Amino acid sequence: MTPTFADIEDAARVLKGLVVRTPLLESPFLNELAGCRLLIKPEMLQKTGSFKFRGAYNTVSRIAKDRRANGVVAYSSGNHAQGTAAAAQLLNIPAVIVMPADAPKLKIANTKAYGAEVVLYDRDNEIREDIAEAIAKDRNATIVRPYDDPCVVAGQGTVGVEIVEDCIALGIKLDALVVPCGGGGLTAGCALAFHTLSPKTQVYSAEPEGFDDTARSLVSGQRETNTPGAKSICDALLLPAPGALTFEINRDLVSVGLVASDDDVQRAMAALFLRLKIVSEPGGAIAAAAVFADDKETFKDKVAAVVCSGGNVDSAAFQTALSISNQ
Amino acid sequence: MTPTFADIEDAARVLKGLVVRTPLLESPFLNELAGCRLLIKPEMLQKTGSFKFRGAYNTVSRIAKDRRANGVVAYSSGNHAQGTAAAAQLLNIPAVIVMPADAPKLKIANTKAYGAEVVLYDRDNEIREDIAEAIAKDRNATIVRPYDDPCVVAGQGTVGVEIVEDCIALGIKLDALVVPCGGGGLTAGCALAFHTLSPKTQVYSAEPEGFDDTARSLVSGQRETNTPGAKSICDALLLPAPGALTFEINRDLVSVGLVASDDDVQRAMAALFLRLKIVSEPGGAIAAAAVFADDKETFKDKVAAVVCSGGNVDSAAFQTALSISNQ
Repeated sequence: MTPTFADIEDAARVLKGLVVRTPLLESPFLNELAGCRLLIKPEMLQKTGSFKFRGAYNTVSRIAKDRRANGVVAYSSGNHAQGTAAAAQLLNIPAVIVMPADAPKLKIANTKAYGAEVVLYDRDNEIREDIAEAIAKDRNATIVRPYDDPCVVAGQGTVGVEIVEDCIALGIKLDALVVPCGGGGLTAGCALAFHTLSPKTQVYSAEPEGFDDTARSLVSGQRETNTPGAKSICDALLLPAPGALTFEINRDLVSVGLVASDDDVQRAMAALFLRLKIVSEPGGAIAAAAVFADDKETFKDKVAAVVCSGGNVDSAAFQTALSISNQ
Repeated sequence: MTPTFADIEDAARVLKGLVVRTPLLESPFLNELAGCRLLIKPEMLQKTGSFKFRGAYNTVSRIAKDRRANGVVAYSSGNHAQGTAAAAQLLNIPAVIVMPADAPKLKIANTKAYGAEVVLYDRDNEIREDIAEAIAKDRNATIVRPYDDPCVVAGQGTVGVEIVEDCIALGIKLDALVVPCGGGGLTAGCALAFHTLSPKTQVYSAEPEGFDDTARSLVSGQRETNTPGAKSICDALLLPAPGALTFEINRDLVSVGLVASDDDVQRAMAALFLRLKIVSEPGGAIAAAAVFADDKETFKDKVAAVVCSGGNVDSAAFQTALSISNQ
């Protein structure tokens, strides 16, 4: 079932007071770097360090009372893991999270600290959905999908609602919105919100090089897959293909898929540190990176907003980005 | 003239829509580290990277029209410099900023980038107030003082108003508020706001070791000075004594002055990076550091808010804090 704008409004009611109302940030230095007026939605400041808490809480809170004791199961490279674990903890529901063994240590440790049981798998040789299904069947638990779920998409869409509300309050007309895209849940939620609230704003997805499945799918009109074996520092965005539900939405509502390199991402992380005092993980900085690196003058002299979607990065990886960028 | 709560309300009206409405952040990990429920007001997300924009804009915007063309003069180690330069730029007023030659390069570069003329002085052998007075006299310009000015104090007090408003919305009763303290403007503004809006909340100042003039002054009841030659990494807080106006307020409204070491500060910077994804400069992290390092159980099982007042730190200094803290 495809979510609607009414589902996003309903999610916003559920999440009110539970999520951080992240502000819109702006820096004259970043505007100059981007060649446009750039507003940043800093979702690394969200509970658990990424936007994922929104969709997870919206979904977990709707599980029927008589099924809650059986718990929830999620699979995630780390941010949906933490979001689901924290949501389950708040609602007193047991959680099992299936995570790749090579996920950042910080994300694994945090997921455990939110009270979840963590099951590790081998990203190259095991299929996480299968492991999660088996656990869910065994315990009669509820699976909380990372993106292909209407409640998850609706929860992420509250990011878009807040951006539009703040722009209206500031008297700003947005020409463009750029959203980090892995499975496409945040992109789909924001695109749905903007379709109703700000239909003239062009919505763009942003992906890492080698994982540009949504960009290519938007061109071909069907779900394309990534070549196996590709590598990127954007651990949050390493998915094989767009989600079925999310692409159904994004195909119609997203203009173009942008792509940025790991170098672009590290430079963006350093610029966001220096100019806005925020900590981005690589995947969280991809939309900002795509705007800074854009050489097609897509945003020239326009007003654009980008979502910085998460900040769960190890200290060493963050320092590398700062050092490489030589700020 | 001592500012009143009405002046803070008036400042809030002037600043509405111009300042970032910074949220209150919380992390279960930091609550555990602090031994209390800890809410963080992240003013590094404010325009120019610190709270100083609030007081500066509130002051500069009240300069009479016929005096504006003569410009403003400010003296500052960097954050009031940037705040005043940005406020003057927004209001199309020329600005001269007197800064110590050893101020962080980032702060000097940013102040220039906001269109100000920067005059450097030797912190050990020159008196910045004298240099600023001479320039102001020469140009018939208006001095924007860093803290000993009712409009500046009132502007900084809007930080306190926002904290109280957010706590009311979240249904939180605050036992304590801890504020970074240099000249005492932010402390005085917040103390005034809390005195009216949340009088049962205890207000604490936080200072670096060697620069605990306000802590000692609160004990003795008169303005004490620091021993010359003391060193601290908290470049924003290296002042010889409390302000006259600010101490008049803080003497009556601040409970106790807390003190933290440079090591405490670096550990706090690393914890705020890791847990809340925010970038603090050393002085900006002093209140959080004082709570984390407190061994007197001052905040045990209480609800406390701390202001993180700025994030203008060079990349190298930030990386040092992360490395030393071994996170």
